[in-house]
Amino acid sequence: MLKDKLDNLRKNGALIHNITNYVTVNDVANALLACGGSPIMADDEEEAPEITAICGGLNINIGTLNKRTIPAMYAAGRKANELGHRVLLDPVGSGASRLRTETARGLIREIRFDVIRGNISEIKALAVGTETTKGVDADVADAVTEDNLSEAVEFVKSFARREGCVAAVTGAIDLVSDGQRCFVIRNGRPEMGRITGTGCQLSAVMTAFITANRREEVLESAAAAVCAMGLAGEIGFFRLSPGEGNATYRNRIIDALYHMDGDQLEKGARYEIR
Amino acid sequence: MLKDKLDNLRKNGALIHNITNYVTVNDVANALLACGGSPIMADDEEEAPEITAICGGLNINIGTLNKRTIPAMYAAGRKANELGHRVLLDPVGSGASRLRTETARGLIREIRFDVIRGNISEIKALAVGTETTKGVDADVADAVTEDNLSEAVEFVKSFARREGCVAAVTGAIDLVSDGQRCFVIRNGRPEMGRITGTGCQLSAVMTAFITANRREEVLESAAAAVCAMGLAGEIGFFRLSPGEGNATYRNRIIDALYHMDGDQLEKGARYEIR
Amino acid sequence: MLKDKLDNLRKNGALIHNITNYVTVNDVANALLACGGSPIMADDEEEAPEITAICGGLNINIGTLNKRTIPAMYAAGRKANELGHRVLLDPVGSGASRLRTETARGLIREIRFDVIRGNISEIKALAVGTETTKGVDADVADAVTEDNLSEAVEFVKSFARREGCVAAVTGAIDLVSDGQRCFVIRNGRPEMGRITGTGCQLSAVMTAFITANRREEVLESAAAAVCAMGLAGEIGFFRLSPGEGNATYRNRIIDALYHMDGDQLEKGARYEIR
Repeated sequence: MLKDKLDNLRKNGALIHNITNYVTVNDVANALLACGGSPIMADDEEEAPEITAICGGLNINIGTLNKRTIPAMYAAGRKANELGHRVLLDPVGSGASRLRTETARGLIREIRFDVIRGNISEIKALAVGTETTKGVDADVADAVTEDNLSEAVEFVKSFARREGCVAAVTGAIDLVSDGQRCFVIRNGRPEMGRITGTGCQLSAVMTAFITANRREEVLESAAAAVCAMGLAGEIGFFRLSPGEGNATYRNRIIDALYHMDGDQLEKGARYEIR
Repeated sequence: MLKDKLDNLRKNGALIHNITNYVTVNDVANALLACGGSPIMADDEEEAPEITAICGGLNINIGTLNKRTIPAMYAAGRKANELGHRVLLDPVGSGASRLRTETARGLIREIRFDVIRGNISEIKALAVGTETTKGVDADVADAVTEDNLSEAVEFVKSFARREGCVAAVTGAIDLVSDGQRCFVIRNGRPEMGRITGTGCQLSAVMTAFITANRREEVLESAAAAVCAMGLAGEIGFFRLSPGEGNATYRNRIIDALYHMDGDQLEKGARYEIR
Repeated sequence: MLKDKLDNLRKNGALIHNITNYVTVNDVANALLACGGSPIMADDEEEAPEITAICGGLNINIGTLNKRTIPAMYAAGRKANELGHRVLLDPVGSGASRLRTETARGLIREIRFDVIRGNISEIKALAVGTETTKGVDADVADAVTEDNLSEAVEFVKSFARREGCVAAVTGAIDLVSDGQRCFVIRNGRPEMGRITGTGCQLSAVMTAFITANRREEVLESAAAAVCAMGLAGEIGFFRLSPGEGNATYRNRIIDALYHMDGDQLEKGARYEIR
């Protein structure tokens, strides 16, 4: 079922406009190129809507949010909505500062997102107003585990229903829901958390997946992206030599994505639907 | 003939001021260090001319153009002209938005560039006002091929004559012309297009080549940079192991540049002059 | 003696707020994750103090200084001082422009830094007002060598005393002093200078070391960070294959940091105290 999501991306391509942070932007671009998409980065309000218009999808990431680029996010988002393009929000660090939480909430109010993707802390900050976060990683107490899985699935489903979009909450166990069904995904490696930006890469790759596939299948396409990134993390880890650490691992993951095809994804994806 | 261009760079060094995008800036810095140059990045209007003054060359790249840094581009460009420094323009995404096209044109009107380097779409956007572009890659219909080579050579020559500089149009076949002669270069690998920023790296490396060599040889120096980058792409590709993709390839190219000497460049360069 | 400095970092973690340049920021984040710390980047004045407040340490790096982020540096620095957090300044390119020199001096006047870390040119620019610098590398004439070591040690000690902080001057020989004692460190490889950002990485890693250890041991913690980074440079160099250059070396250094433990650091550190 996930196979054709990647095949379509490789076949159709997907030009993605990214308004994203400067920390992980290079890996974001290479991850997009690895999976069959193409990146454009443009964050000035004056040109953002024009760039959005020539792309197929828009990926908004608030990782190094600043007042100069916030208007570009709104302008690009409105243009994408107007043109019926796919739009994804990655509310990095939401809950860590008022600026981030309020900007993410403001964007959600004004822009119709196809997917909101973050860790559990970030999504909780948007949902319930709790304002604690441990950097850009999920608060450990709030991690999704086998023990609290049912509760977490319900939370993600209700968030997706309330926001009228697909919600993707990633961590040790990943949850992707459209409010009715929830993909529970167990791909990936814990060591991915020792690399900066695997979440940002996933958001960009996910935007490419949902852009290259039909809107009716945004849930499956988003889930396919999560499986693809997690599987790339498994393949990349397996290919590490002794002494190689997080810097080389970063490259191996993008390399694995570069060589992945639909069959490999289909075989390697580990998920259930609840 | 190209050998001494790299030898001079390794011997003389070249401190290059880069006002460039935040997507590929790290690779740009490492590519400069690999070929024997040194990078400084500074994009605030207040300090840009001072930084230009202590450097030998200036590389202006509009990849993530924004209104904050445009005045720095003008200020640095004017200072470089005043001091007789080498100056290169990489009009990334020119044609993709009015802001980019008009900024590139404005810079060309006010600053005397030694080289303008871009893909065929970007250069066409500057030349004839066509405003289509496929992201940061050349429009496929406008790619330089063996079939349209004569026409493309004429286009690049006439662009170089009109602008009074060297024009470097890179793609599957690379063309570098001063308006009279045109280097037709066949180094490189198509897979380089699956890495973000090989064009940006080339622009920086080219700035170092033209800075470390005599102004009378700017054409040969720019062509040598194109051959060096393409050859590094060939060597890096040859060194890839099964399963390695665009992330590792990115490193292998810079590594190949790091070890390249004039003899290797001379032997590996594949070009004709038309 | 240095062993427990790294062990404490691995055990306690250290969430570090970085206001840093966009050239090397990705490597800075991965180096922090490699040594046991965690990165947050936030440079908007509005959110900087809030982000500082949830972190343990603050790393201010002026590598791509611009007027938008200078107020964030002051605001974050004041908040860190107010909360008693560790604060480090990396005055990249100080001496290369008035903006950088004056911003660094202004920050030193208003913020109480635990450590100021730079190359000898940068520190001299802050100390004596000489305004020459060769890019971001120490002026060769001003390099610390065995011949001028006594003089350099005295200079660093007196700078540290005058500023009331630990001064870390890195280069071929690294000097770290609190004004009374001076660690003279001989770890590292000259080839590290051919990679962009090893200095920036060291500043971030050093902030993590001093944050995870007791304030009374800031001198030893800063010295341990210098030894760790230098040792990682030695290990990474030893692991390079023929044909690998500065791009791969960059990864190998971070990988070595990722696997380093306190015992390895203790055995590999090469220093004397003067």
